[in-house]
Amino acid sequence: MHHEHHLRSSDTIRDIVIGMSDGLTVPFALAAGLSGAVNSSSIIITAGIAEIVAGSIAMGLGGFLAGKTEADHYASELKREYDEVARVPEQEKAEVKEVFAGFGLSTQLQNQVADEMAKDTDKWVDFMMRYELGLEKPEANRATQSALTIGFSYIIGGIIPLSPYFFIAESGTALYYSCAITLICLFVFGYFKSKVTGQAPVSDALKVVVIGALAAAAAFAVAKLINGK
Amino acid sequence: MHHEHHLRSSDTIRDIVIGMSDGLTVPFALAAGLSGAVNSSSIIITAGIAEIVAGSIAMGLGGFLAGKTEADHYASELKREYDEVARVPEQEKAEVKEVFAGFGLSTQLQNQVADEMAKDTDKWVDFMMRYELGLEKPEANRATQSALTIGFSYIIGGIIPLSPYFFIAESGTALYYSCAITLICLFVFGYFKSKVTGQAPVSDALKVVVIGALAAAAAFAVAKLINGK
Repeated sequence: MHHEHHLRSSDTIRDIVIGMSDGLTVPFALAAGLSGAVNSSSIIITAGIAEIVAGSIAMGLGGFLAGKTEADHYASELKREYDEVARVPEQEKAEVKEVFAGFGLSTQLQNQVADEMAKDTDKWVDFMMRYELGLEKPEANRATQSALTIGFSYIIGGIIPLSPYFFIAESGTALYYSCAITLICLFVFGYFKSKVTGQAPVSDALKVVVIGALAAAAAFAVAKLINGK
Repeated sequence: MHHEHHLRSSDTIRDIVIGMSDGLTVPFALAAGLSGAVNSSSIIITAGIAEIVAGSIAMGLGGFLAGKTEADHYASELKREYDEVARVPEQEKAEVKEVFAGFGLSTQLQNQVADEMAKDTDKWVDFMMRYELGLEKPEANRATQSALTIGFSYIIGGIIPLSPYFFIAESGTALYYSCAITLICLFVFGYFKSKVTGQAPVSDALKVVVIGALAAAAAFAVAKLINGK
């Protein structure tokens, strides 16, 4: 089905967007913040890599658990719907009618639809799951795939703003290069993200850049303030 | 409607969960990682607060943009459906029939439903939005509320693991207290989160604790490795 396909590809894209936008932004802002407080790139590299490791695990496993929870929730609701259809079929039929009453169908037509749908239990339950409860069947292995996609995107995103600090010992100088590289990457990333999701690419890309710049500037200012420099 | 209400409250809870679980985990793991590399709590406080500032802005504004994108997407699809219903009504009726064919209704009944639904354009379009495209109307001000909830939850979550470093100058000692406090908070947080979302509280709480511990241990190990200690 076209609809299903659309949903799946946008799930993966959403995972990449989640991972990479945070990966580009948070380690970038952390490194910028520390550049406002310490002069040595080595401490910034240590903090930055610790952050990337922590962030990718937290986000990746977080994504895994969220996917698992969704799958568990679907399974338990599915079981309950099968139970209810067997136990109180008239009540479940009334719920089907209610859905169609909401779309302005006549009582007579509501009855016909409910009766006909009740002939096939699987399709009836599927209808209740999707249209009464608003639940889509989660894809198998969605949780694992989601965890890997988010975690990996976070690592890729995080290495970019950190890279200048590997080559430039003085953190203030490295910060300039980090800002330039990261803001360009955020723009390119925001541009393609918007292309794929069908939004206005340039204005959306600028929004992504502004978030990154704001986060970095705030972290820089706060770190300077703490250190009283 | 009950269904709508359920969705809304779980959106806010999801935002709190997103913000607080990352807030508890990432600054905790970053501080733990840096404790493996530097002895002074002051640099860890600077890095930790820079991370909280950066993370809360990135996540909060990220949540805001996600909400905005969802609302824009809904508005543009809604416009397109109204256009199509006016321009190619027969094709749109065929799509309604297709939905019901999927649930095993007879052709005759499919026709009746499509004809009756077509009498009220608003309800027809609403049906197409929800059941063909799977789109729910986003709540007004959802984006702003989501941004504030996620950002604030991240700050609250992040201050907890950082607090021992404010009182204990030697970072190795502060780390013990940070681990104890944070793992307890992760358990309590995981427990209530699972209660609310209807999952098994204890096993789910343990999963949340394991993610935090894993992220912190990995960050600690990597930071030690980089510094060759």
